[in-house]
Amino acid sequence: MALEIERKFLVRNTDWRAGKGQLMRQGYLGGGGGTTVRVRLAGERAWLTIKGPTTGATRAEYEYAIPADDARDMLASLCPGPLVEKRRFEVEHAGFTWEVDEFLGDNTGLVVAEIELESEDQLVPLPAWVGEEVTGDPRYYNASLARHPYRQWR
Amino acid sequence: MALEIERKFLVRNTDWRAGKGQLMRQGYLGGGGGTTVRVRLAGERAWLTIKGPTTGATRAEYEYAIPADDARDMLASLCPGPLVEKRRFEVEHAGFTWEVDEFLGDNTGLVVAEIELESEDQLVPLPAWVGEEVTGDPRYYNASLARHPYRQWR
Repeated sequence: MALEIERKFLVRNTDWRAGKGQLMRQGYLGGGGGTTVRVRLAGERAWLTIKGPTTGATRAEYEYAIPADDARDMLASLCPGPLVEKRRFEVEHAGFTWEVDEFLGDNTGLVVAEIELESEDQLVPLPAWVGEEVTGDPRYYNASLARHPYRQWR
Repeated sequence: MALEIERKFLVRNTDWRAGKGQLMRQGYLGGGGGTTVRVRLAGERAWLTIKGPTTGATRAEYEYAIPADDARDMLASLCPGPLVEKRRFEVEHAGFTWEVDEFLGDNTGLVVAEIELESEDQLVPLPAWVGEEVTGDPRYYNASLARHPYRQWR
């Protein structure tokens, strides 16, 4: 098991953008009580990831590489749609690697920047393009975006 | 992906019993729409198994070996109890290997014999100790036994 400690922010502009990013498709196999079971496909690599309930910025995470064909099958047949599709960019800033997710499909218009921490109180220098912090806001959980996509908000 | 094609029976007596069997503990990470995500621990081996909805005697199955410590963690912290505990016996009969599960804990008293098939119409010689067929009866799904254990039946 790993602990995932993560802060999440909206972005102010597109100054983070560099390269083409990595296209990802993911869906969820139910779960409950705050636990999620995610199937993620990125090119020809795929993972099954179990995450426990979030406390603060922290949740338990168990991740296993699986065959891409299995992921394709599960996304097509077992994950209730719509799937979450996004392009992930890795952006270096002050010795930290940010993951910036530009969502597609039903979540087009949403861009979220994430940073993984060693501990909840670790200080991270924020890039100028980082905006409002949304850590812990359940609307921005990717599992929530599968059920209540950004385009349906408000 | 594999297809799991399986028939399931109650037993008439204990003539199947030989050896000590393998103790297994398993729990479920939610799921939905007939999909189950199972964590199984058997000694120091463990698996994460996703099964799709059952059609007849057939369901899609994706199984991945995982570290036993991960399984222990997930069973303790992420699987809503009670867990399903059983002792599994492998019993040879007429060239087929039957799996006989003697349930423990809240499911004590229940014994189920399963046989995996190559196709739904494959003929299998039934041992004399095999009783009523319960293939497709959702009460006997292990995921159901976690929520509605045998001791609560009447």
